[in-house]
Amino acid sequence: MSDKRFFKADGPFALGQIAELVGGRLASPDDMNIIVEDVACLKTARDGDIAVFCDTGFADAFATSHASVVVTSEKLARLPHNGSAILVVDDPKTAFARIGQMFYPRKTSSGKIHPSAVVPPCVKLGEDVEIAAGAVIGDGVAIGARSRIGANAVIGDGVVIGADCSIGPNTSISHTLIGHHVTIAANASIGGEGFGFVPGPKGPVKVSQLGRVVIEDKVEIGNNCAIDRGSLEDTVIGMGTAIDNLVQIGHNVRIGRYCVLAGQAGVAGSTTIGDGVMVGGGVSISDHLTIGSGAKIAGKSGVMRDVAPGDVVAGYPAVPVRQWHKQTAALAKLIARKCGGKDSS
Amino acid sequence: MSDKRFFKADGPFALGQIAELVGGRLASPDDMNIIVEDVACLKTARDGDIAVFCDTGFADAFATSHASVVVTSEKLARLPHNGSAILVVDDPKTAFARIGQMFYPRKTSSGKIHPSAVVPPCVKLGEDVEIAAGAVIGDGVAIGARSRIGANAVIGDGVVIGADCSIGPNTSISHTLIGHHVTIAANASIGGEGFGFVPGPKGPVKVSQLGRVVIEDKVEIGNNCAIDRGSLEDTVIGMGTAIDNLVQIGHNVRIGRYCVLAGQAGVAGSTTIGDGVMVGGGVSISDHLTIGSGAKIAGKSGVMRDVAPGDVVAGYPAVPVRQWHKQTAALAKLIARKCGGKDSS
Amino acid sequence: MSDKRFFKADGPFALGQIAELVGGRLASPDDMNIIVEDVACLKTARDGDIAVFCDTGFADAFATSHASVVVTSEKLARLPHNGSAILVVDDPKTAFARIGQMFYPRKTSSGKIHPSAVVPPCVKLGEDVEIAAGAVIGDGVAIGARSRIGANAVIGDGVVIGADCSIGPNTSISHTLIGHHVTIAANASIGGEGFGFVPGPKGPVKVSQLGRVVIEDKVEIGNNCAIDRGSLEDTVIGMGTAIDNLVQIGHNVRIGRYCVLAGQAGVAGSTTIGDGVMVGGGVSISDHLTIGSGAKIAGKSGVMRDVAPGDVVAGYPAVPVRQWHKQTAALAKLIARKCGGKDSS
Repeated sequence: MSDKRFFKADGPFALGQIAELVGGRLASPDDMNIIVEDVACLKTARDGDIAVFCDTGFADAFATSHASVVVTSEKLARLPHNGSAILVVDDPKTAFARIGQMFYPRKTSSGKIHPSAVVPPCVKLGEDVEIAAGAVIGDGVAIGARSRIGANAVIGDGVVIGADCSIGPNTSISHTLIGHHVTIAANASIGGEGFGFVPGPKGPVKVSQLGRVVIEDKVEIGNNCAIDRGSLEDTVIGMGTAIDNLVQIGHNVRIGRYCVLAGQAGVAGSTTIGDGVMVGGGVSISDHLTIGSGAKIAGKSGVMRDVAPGDVVAGYPAVPVRQWHKQTAALAKLIARKCGGKDSS
Repeated sequence: MSDKRFFKADGPFALGQIAELVGGRLASPDDMNIIVEDVACLKTARDGDIAVFCDTGFADAFATSHASVVVTSEKLARLPHNGSAILVVDDPKTAFARIGQMFYPRKTSSGKIHPSAVVPPCVKLGEDVEIAAGAVIGDGVAIGARSRIGANAVIGDGVVIGADCSIGPNTSISHTLIGHHVTIAANASIGGEGFGFVPGPKGPVKVSQLGRVVIEDKVEIGNNCAIDRGSLEDTVIGMGTAIDNLVQIGHNVRIGRYCVLAGQAGVAGSTTIGDGVMVGGGVSISDHLTIGSGAKIAGKSGVMRDVAPGDVVAGYPAVPVRQWHKQTAALAKLIARKCGGKDSS
Repeated sequence: MSDKRFFKADGPFALGQIAELVGGRLASPDDMNIIVEDVACLKTARDGDIAVFCDTGFADAFATSHASVVVTSEKLARLPHNGSAILVVDDPKTAFARIGQMFYPRKTSSGKIHPSAVVPPCVKLGEDVEIAAGAVIGDGVAIGARSRIGANAVIGDGVVIGADCSIGPNTSISHTLIGHHVTIAANASIGGEGFGFVPGPKGPVKVSQLGRVVIEDKVEIGNNCAIDRGSLEDTVIGMGTAIDNLVQIGHNVRIGRYCVLAGQAGVAGSTTIGDGVMVGGGVSISDHLTIGSGAKIAGKSGVMRDVAPGDVVAGYPAVPVRQWHKQTAALAKLIARKCGGKDSS
């Protein structure tokens, strides 16, 4: 059960409603009238809770759970359980994610502008925009309906934010066009000057950074990320892409749709990333590369060459993941049985 | 001598008082009445200063130092010095740290709430809480006695902060319970939404993040860190753990007591770390791993498997540190004298 | 053409003026009266724009560009073009950077202090200082002429900022002395407590951090960087050094003049870096090392030993770059043709 100080559940809902939402089948149709009050995990679930079972590693928890309802697959439903009602679905993880959203829909706008926020008269605000305390909005900013600007956020002159967006506290945005349903978390810096210098005998000569950041619909950007604006062209984050915390995106980078970049990943300037690319945590991608759609880059890799669409790479420098595993194994062998019998220890 | 614009030393103290605090022995008992005014390093110390000598690499500085007093070990005290009074202790580094704290105790609360801070009536404040200019406190927040909230910090609804804590400027906290004597530096983001998605054909489906961050007593968290709240369970930072700058802690991570995580380390979701674990700078630890108590992880490692208690690992992928050194040496040899005489250059 | 919501070009300028600024030669002297209105890239340039051509990879764009003027080298000017006027210079990149600065000079101070900024009476302000909304200035702070403090920035007690500086929104600075013409971007944390602990049986003992950060003239620091103050000595960033986003600089680090540190680099405590050092993105440098002037460290490297002046290193652990390339090649060969014919796959 979630902490009531922080979360307020919608509901309760009848199990029948939930089954309908996720297109699931009740093992016992009589269970459709069970009243479900909250989501929980198998171990800590109590009467009234719905939990998910999607991994045999949790079979023990399933066997002893006090959840009123468990969402699971046809196959896992056959394992022993503790009398919970069983809701069978094709994809338990996705179903449970949707049930979570049913109980805890995204926070909606209060429609209030705090008196301590700084909002100049020339700002265009849609209906029900929320601007929290201490936020500073620049001249000519446009913010779409129902969007929420966090406390002490700073939105620079001319920035455009679409509808149903959420900008976190202490986040700084400039030189940026943002679509609809975009979430940016706390302490992020969006639209800063790219890192553009020409080396010279009297030190680096700065290159004016005259592009923008363009963030398409449904993008999610984590805490403490830094996304620089383009130099002459734009930096673009494609629709539905999700970016974790502390990620660095250099100037002129173009990221496609529905990519996932995990924590502390970094993409250097002018690199282009296709659609549906998965980038692991702590990955560094060099500048001016092309990463094809559907590529997967294992955590901590250092990518120094283009990656073809659909390829899976790992290592530093990154190579095809099977090659990396073989290299790792060969290296371990090398020190176990020395080449030609020589001992290098 | 520290810059008086930034630091104000307590004292002066008689050397006898200092010796008593650290359980040290004066080489010449007559020195107990020497008046010590400040701490300094061997090289720049002047009359009235106390410095530390704990590494033979600084023997020259010891031999020429103008410090009035030098704290050192029995053994190092035998090296030539410049007439400083000598305070002998078992562990000079720890003794000098304690002396530093004696001259420069942690800043105390002014007990003032700046008129520009936003503090709703339903907030529970202990005695002598300090809230700096521009800080925004949410509804239902509780802050313990003598705690200090930095300028423009944002404390979200329902957050609990214990006594004697310090929250840095521009830091954003939500969905978090904080113990006593906790320090969080500037521009950190604590309690943000974890990075939880289920991949799907129409893009990732978001998993509601319904847990909290629980920070136990005496934890230190550096600048620009991001610590996400749990998804259904909590993210936990155990007592006395110290976290450096720009560290990423994913959702559901559990870190034990008295761990040390150096700068830019990252711990992916649902990993459990025992007590007294040392994590070097730039380390990435994968998700759902278990790192045993007392383990040490060398800087820049990429940890992709569990680490047993007390193990020391290094490399990417991380392996036992001795294996890593051998691998590194073998690789260097491999290119010097080719296997079977082949030249790959 | 840049987005007028975010950028306002100076000019227009006659091409003759531009040629004079960069010391260039017009292919047809008659072109000196061409009126240039903006900078652009070859592909998107329109009538009135000036673009640069400095890489044969863009020969197609040069051949078809609608730019009124193209800046290029003697050699590249011979390639086919689309009737643009040609401005020949020795170093097209540097020339174009200077032209960019001519059209888009650094933003100047409004000289205004926003009424919501918190500025105590004891602060020393030069002429035409700009302090944006919500900024909080500490006691005894000094800010030089024409410097600009961003919205919601927090400048701690005693901090000194020189003339012509720009401090980004939501940036937090304490215990720091800043020279002239320094730029610090958004959400950075400068002057925080260094990560100084002595391990002990009852947990780490904190070492008081009594030094400062000293930032020399013309330094640039990116978004979300963390630079800790020294413990007893200072952390120093030398003149003209440029630091990208999300970079970590530990306590007592000394960085020389005109260095470049790319995104997510990290330098651990007490390391000294010479002049003109290039540090790639995602590099980690261990503590207490010396990196010689003119050294280059390839992206993602983990530097665990001193680097001699002028050396180029790569890898983890970092080795001379040629050795690293050989190692990488040897490792790939190792799995292709096994040593002694053994197959480890």
